Amino acid sequence: MKTMEDVFEHTLQDIYYAENALTKAIPKAAEAASNKDLKSGLEEHLLETKEQIKILKQVFKSIGKEAKGEKCDAIEGLIKETEGIIEEARTQKARDIALIGACQAIEHYEISRYGTLREWAKVLGHDEAHDMLTQILDMEKAANSKLTNLAVTEANKK
Amino acid sequence: MKTMEDVFEHTLQDIYYAENALTKAIPKAAEAASNKDLKSGLEEHLLETKEQIKILKQVFKSIGKEAKGEKCDAIEGLIKETEGIIEEARTQKARDIALIGACQAIEHYEISRYGTLREWAKVLGHDEAHDMLTQILDMEKAANSKLTNLAVTEANKK
Repeated sequence: MKTMEDVFEHTLQDIYYAENALTKAIPKAAEAASNKDLKSGLEEHLLETKEQIKILKQVFKSIGKEAKGEKCDAIEGLIKETEGIIEEARTQKARDIALIGACQAIEHYEISRYGTLREWAKVLGHDEAHDMLTQILDMEKAANSKLTNLAVTEANKK
Repeated sequence: MKTMEDVFEHTLQDIYYAENALTKAIPKAAEAASNKDLKSGLEEHLLETKEQIKILKQVFKSIGKEAKGEKCDAIEGLIKETEGIIEEARTQKARDIALIGACQAIEHYEISRYGTLREWAKVLGHDEAHDMLTQILDMEKAANSKLTNLAVTEANKK
């Protein structure tokens, strides 16, 4: 990576890898969830993730590059942590609460990366990419808000 | 983990591990940074991180538990990603820009975890812990805001 353009492309490859990894991780989380809203929310987010991958392919295309993933250590660690929680929880309540928290950590990671990427896109004059990355960012923010509501409801359940 | 109390304690151990890991990772990032503000910001954040570890010890004490770390896969992944960036960048500009982005991903992870922890503390009636976790959360949010400003300045530099 020599230029800002290189950093942009590299980070795009990272998040492309991350979203693809999530299409494999989300079904496992949905299966482990007991809370119906969490389960359906995760199933819905899986569809959204697949949609985001399609949009990312368009982002690559808009900058004249081929869509390609680059191993992203951060998402690997975040997914590993989530899988650890599923294993270590011994009750439905503990598993659901911990799972919501872990999913929020993943959403925050994505929000951070898309926030950075769309700002870089703007500076680099990739207006089309900027708009598409903003679209994904808004989807992630909405997903995180839903999780926050779920977290509050679930934590306060007797 | 059976109860919400267990999940709270486990996540506290995770973030305690994470902050301790960051005291080793931040100096490496500060050394790699060329931008003076980024370098000094990281050095300042190292001091803050040490302060946060002290506060976390008080949080453990306030719930009658011993401060203990539990390996946190998420922070390991985030740090590994940051180290990868330092290695792969071939120019100061690329390294600084990518480094700011990676540091923001770490801040977002921490913001997510402290946000969750302090809400759990409230529900569990750990009022003192809630206040201390809010104090750390505010520090992390401020650190992230500084990084956002730096990101914008650095990206727009010729």
